[in-house]
Amino acid sequence: MNTPGPQVVALGGGHGLYGSLSALRRVTDRLTAVVTVADDGGSSGRLRRELGVLPPGDLRMALAALCGDDEWGQTWRDVVQHRFRSQGELHDHAVGNLLIVALWELLGGVQPGVDQTGGIPLVGGPAVGGSTVAGLDWVGRLLGAHGRVLPMASVPMDIVAEVRGADPDRPDEVTKVKGQVACAKTPGTVLSVSLVPSDPPACPEALEAVLDADFVVFGPGSWFTSVLPHLKVPELARALTDTRAQRIVALNLVPQPGETDDFSQQTHLEVLQAHAPELRIDVVLADRAAVDDPAALEKAVDALGGELVLADVAAPDGSPRHDPALLAQAFARIFAD
Amino acid sequence: MNTPGPQVVALGGGHGLYGSLSALRRVTDRLTAVVTVADDGGSSGRLRRELGVLPPGDLRMALAALCGDDEWGQTWRDVVQHRFRSQGELHDHAVGNLLIVALWELLGGVQPGVDQTGGIPLVGGPAVGGSTVAGLDWVGRLLGAHGRVLPMASVPMDIVAEVRGADPDRPDEVTKVKGQVACAKTPGTVLSVSLVPSDPPACPEALEAVLDADFVVFGPGSWFTSVLPHLKVPELARALTDTRAQRIVALNLVPQPGETDDFSQQTHLEVLQAHAPELRIDVVLADRAAVDDPAALEKAVDALGGELVLADVAAPDGSPRHDPALLAQAFARIFAD
Repeated sequence: MNTPGPQVVALGGGHGLYGSLSALRRVTDRLTAVVTVADDGGSSGRLRRELGVLPPGDLRMALAALCGDDEWGQTWRDVVQHRFRSQGELHDHAVGNLLIVALWELLGGVQPGVDQTGGIPLVGGPAVGGSTVAGLDWVGRLLGAHGRVLPMASVPMDIVAEVRGADPDRPDEVTKVKGQVACAKTPGTVLSVSLVPSDPPACPEALEAVLDADFVVFGPGSWFTSVLPHLKVPELARALTDTRAQRIVALNLVPQPGETDDFSQQTHLEVLQAHAPELRIDVVLADRAAVDDPAALEKAVDALGGELVLADVAAPDGSPRHDPALLAQAFARIFAD
Repeated sequence: MNTPGPQVVALGGGHGLYGSLSALRRVTDRLTAVVTVADDGGSSGRLRRELGVLPPGDLRMALAALCGDDEWGQTWRDVVQHRFRSQGELHDHAVGNLLIVALWELLGGVQPGVDQTGGIPLVGGPAVGGSTVAGLDWVGRLLGAHGRVLPMASVPMDIVAEVRGADPDRPDEVTKVKGQVACAKTPGTVLSVSLVPSDPPACPEALEAVLDADFVVFGPGSWFTSVLPHLKVPELARALTDTRAQRIVALNLVPQPGETDDFSQQTHLEVLQAHAPELRIDVVLADRAAVDDPAALEKAVDALGGELVLADVAAPDGSPRHDPALLAQAFARIFAD
């Protein structure tokens, strides 16, 4: 890479964002990840409940995806990704989660569990002020990260999904399911998601990155719990609508078990549009072999005002994940157009 | 400092070693700490029991004492020293302890809790092989450490003390007390310490450092639980006897509550000699104002074959700790002689 490349913002969380970042880091040096902070399961959920902090797991994974290529970057990536395995209290905690939380506590100068807002029952003391971003930047420096990782909002939040048939005995009933884990695992069909609190403060640095970007990339990833939540943070949704950046949607290779079991690729786009009716999409990138019904997908892309790009981006081994090099090539062609 | 300074090995653990390292780092760039690994309390004790590793706490504190002077070194020092405070499972864990253990697990490639020795009931899988030292070196690189930190042995161990009056109702009875915490807190008088296992493998890099040193410094610190255990690791005791380095004892300013309540400074030296009869001591450094009976101390130093150096090394604020700058001056004068 001879030039620093375009300014790119990647939106998402979890393994999907890890995949897009692993590709995008090959195409540009000016990369910012804006990450979901609604996880309530596993190590992140426990830290959130025990210490009142933002769930760090998706942020950690994004930082790991951006680590330096040298021995230093690879070693610290392995350390932050390392999980303790035991019969005891540390079991399943990821070391990077603990490191991120420690930096938040340290740089925030906040007593964990103490409300710093003068009575407003705001969870997540250490997230108040600039310490959240500063802590993530320190872990980025540790990893020699090729880019920056920011949370989509400055407070922890919960995803609430409208689900049809959450109770298998009442397949037609629409109910609300709360929490990222519950939403991701519901046996019903997710119709839409919203956030609690419904108007969380966006991360100012994330708004700035979106407004300054040349390209904004949605997905791949768990559609309702990692990709769409960004659109339910009002300030962030506004920035995503207002930015002059080209908006790219990278579709999943296969439906997410549970969350989007029966969803076609066009349904993914329809759901995206339903969550942000004013959002224009410029490019939809899909794996050629993963498209069942090219005409229907083309029609759905048209409805969003965008262009469909088909490319071979799946891993050659047949596993349902994107190949970083192939995905990077596809992004590079889109950026060059 | 224009020259790299002499090769110095500092022996001890806990706050005492933190104090000697804080002084010695001002005098030499060629500094190695050899640290007690018998702690069974607090965060270290819990990690040792949960994950079967060496207790990392004293190693962490020594690394923190050697951290770089710049913002990078100071920030990561604060991170490794940071302790979680909560009502939950992470309460009181020091972040650096978790980081060190993660590196051991990662670099050792050992499944925690699984015996890697083919049947020998050796505690501490991750301590087998070179991963212990490699993990500590990585934390040293993270901190920009001015020196190296090594464990005194390659396996976790327990201190066993012979104590007179451990049971206050039987003040003359001599019994055995097991565990660093129990030994440090016993209401009785500690007479001697030994280790379980009694012949632990020394850390090869620590033996090498001792044999290559120009100066070896014992103390200050908890006499029975931080300073004397090194002499009960047979290979290490032999290296300390055989080395051509000058052997310096830095005496404590006040007796350790519990452990050495009624001990005079000469008693400390007598106890040292009883634990390593063949060890010759070249210099005993004591704070001028802390010496109650100069003649008796002089006599005890003579018995060890050494020279008594009195200097003002206590913190000017009257707190019972060494002043790093004053202690550094005293070491510098001893090294120059």
